[in-house]
Amino acid sequence: MEPGLFEITGGITAPKGFRAGAVHCGIKEGSTGKLDLGLVISDFPAVSAATFTTNKIKAAPVRVSAAHIRSSETRGIIVNSGNANACTGSTGIQDARRMTQAAARESKYKERQILVCSTGRIGRQLPIEKIEKAVPALVADLKTDGSTRLAQAIMTTDTFEKQVAVELSVGNCAIRIGGVAKGAGMINPDMATMLCFVTTDAQIAKRDLQDLFSASVEQSFNPITVDGDMSTNDTAICLANGKAENPPVLPDQKEYALLGEALNFVTRRLARMIVEDGEGVTKFVEVHVKGAATYQDARKAAQAIANSNLAKCAWFGRDPNWGRIMAAVGYSSAKVREEMIDIFFNGVIATQHGIASGTPEDKLREILQNKKFTITIDLHLGAAEYKVFTTDLTPDYVQLNMGE
Amino acid sequence: MEPGLFEITGGITAPKGFRAGAVHCGIKEGSTGKLDLGLVISDFPAVSAATFTTNKIKAAPVRVSAAHIRSSETRGIIVNSGNANACTGSTGIQDARRMTQAAARESKYKERQILVCSTGRIGRQLPIEKIEKAVPALVADLKTDGSTRLAQAIMTTDTFEKQVAVELSVGNCAIRIGGVAKGAGMINPDMATMLCFVTTDAQIAKRDLQDLFSASVEQSFNPITVDGDMSTNDTAICLANGKAENPPVLPDQKEYALLGEALNFVTRRLARMIVEDGEGVTKFVEVHVKGAATYQDARKAAQAIANSNLAKCAWFGRDPNWGRIMAAVGYSSAKVREEMIDIFFNGVIATQHGIASGTPEDKLREILQNKKFTITIDLHLGAAEYKVFTTDLTPDYVQLNMGE
Repeated sequence: MEPGLFEITGGITAPKGFRAGAVHCGIKEGSTGKLDLGLVISDFPAVSAATFTTNKIKAAPVRVSAAHIRSSETRGIIVNSGNANACTGSTGIQDARRMTQAAARESKYKERQILVCSTGRIGRQLPIEKIEKAVPALVADLKTDGSTRLAQAIMTTDTFEKQVAVELSVGNCAIRIGGVAKGAGMINPDMATMLCFVTTDAQIAKRDLQDLFSASVEQSFNPITVDGDMSTNDTAICLANGKAENPPVLPDQKEYALLGEALNFVTRRLARMIVEDGEGVTKFVEVHVKGAATYQDARKAAQAIANSNLAKCAWFGRDPNWGRIMAAVGYSSAKVREEMIDIFFNGVIATQHGIASGTPEDKLREILQNKKFTITIDLHLGAAEYKVFTTDLTPDYVQLNMGE
Repeated sequence: MEPGLFEITGGITAPKGFRAGAVHCGIKEGSTGKLDLGLVISDFPAVSAATFTTNKIKAAPVRVSAAHIRSSETRGIIVNSGNANACTGSTGIQDARRMTQAAARESKYKERQILVCSTGRIGRQLPIEKIEKAVPALVADLKTDGSTRLAQAIMTTDTFEKQVAVELSVGNCAIRIGGVAKGAGMINPDMATMLCFVTTDAQIAKRDLQDLFSASVEQSFNPITVDGDMSTNDTAICLANGKAENPPVLPDQKEYALLGEALNFVTRRLARMIVEDGEGVTKFVEVHVKGAATYQDARKAAQAIANSNLAKCAWFGRDPNWGRIMAAVGYSSAKVREEMIDIFFNGVIATQHGIASGTPEDKLREILQNKKFTITIDLHLGAAEYKVFTTDLTPDYVQLNMGE
């Protein structure tokens, strides 16, 4: 952690001027009282930044939020779990708008000041009347310590709520940043929806917030989500309401870099929690490709390994089968020279110059007993590198994803 | 089946002048007498054609065979299972050559006339002395009805041997084509080694054989093996020894087209057997993308669906979750327009104009009870199409691949 940066409690409601709440409105059929509708509100005008899925099939709430994010002032986010409101046509768009309208009406803001997110099954219409009916209770539930309830309301197959908050000193001001997130199936290769909401009381211009937040997502969520494999609903949103009353943070100031680092800490921590809560996983694996000729080569090789079902099955079985890693590197389309490749498990060499290193297999097998380990692949062709966080592939993953 | 084309018994030794054999030489530690070394020999000079893996990490036997295939005359193929001889450095190359040398010496042909293949675990040196010691017994085992033993010798996790043979009439001549293959893990996305050997007694020039065989592989094995995901050892070889004594088959003749169709029948049949013997699978799914703007778009969309772990888990669970298909199409990088997409399960519409069609989910669920079904995705943007054969993803797949 950087000097001057402290972890605090309170999650998304730790920064000044934010309240959050959640209710059960019955979106998931048969679910017994689980929170499924959440709201976060800034009691003061906020600027907003966001990154959305690059999937060409975009859920209705993504389309509506992408329009509303252009508003110069944002007040909040309404979010439901249990239904993705994706592949739902014009009715879906209307329903996403009705969610923002209901939240705006009840909290006295404008529709364009409310963003909207959904997560759950694709292809079913939202029970919009249930949602609209629940919004008054939802607004009544808003509290300055409501982060945990909001974090719970966005959970699907997540097994624990994901929230974090930090405070940093900038000059004489204390700036706070809070965040919540929901997990993402098995992380690679086919992510379920990833949602992340970050709040801060920093004073910063909308454009600068977007720059900082985009960079922060790039170094936190993107390495756990292969770009091409984004879900229809992935959304990360950041709201900044200026209530820390710091002098506006401007690029080229050291405060800007400090704020960026604090934001990176928050998003990285949430990303790490998502990996650790992967569906049915037993292993958390950092794949670190270095010595690549280009950044793109490093990325392609790392992602091919992280997405190899055969490699992931071997990790589940504690089998130090580096041949499957070599095969994935070979088909990754990264530039490689077989006889240059070294592979390490937690720093212990398994493969040297493309062939078995001579390290006893039992020694490697011991490393794979760990719940977390790092696989380093040195291509020895340049200075570029890339890290991906991923998991094993388990029978439980299949069971969890075989139906509703 | 085309008129004039008949299926016959005999596999790879059905064509005139070919013998095959196999022995157990002890490559797999702890395996009890399973055949693990095979040989097919043409008793007459043959021309050869082949396609090899596009993986940048190529096994030693692939490198050696790629050199030997340039020889104008080929006599046979020696093959082992239980060890891939991949990522084995210069020792591996020497050992692959020692395999061809031993087979050549014992059968009185030249080293360059023998091709070599291996399949099994990557990264371990071959027990080459065991192999060399077994070659005399291997040559002694060669028989004109030895196809089944050869087909068994190349099995790894396969549960049944894969062989087929056909006879076609060309003018006054009967030409025969036979083939054997070994399976390929779960078919998509990470194939284990695919090997295929085809023999024919047709008389045809080497260049023309290569053209026909390349086209045949393209329409049979490539749609079950995503191009980028080839293993280090994938090899398909065709030998033609001319003993049918037909007038040489030349391009532009209708006999050339007939021979090509017969070859396609053989390779498609073997490809289908490979899919049906996928590791731990319970469902065989044809993914048919049509109405794409370009062939590449159709291919990308079909492969994204066939490789989607979430879609494959849903098939295992008999869940007609077409939303996961939409999501895969959306991240496939194919050109799509959400509101144009129709999806069918065995011809029954599930998704119309990008949203639920209104077909009762129970009716769709019933279709997914079948062991085999077809999913058709109509993008309604053009006339290009592509078909992929794939499988579900099952807990058994993970168990089979979690270690040795």
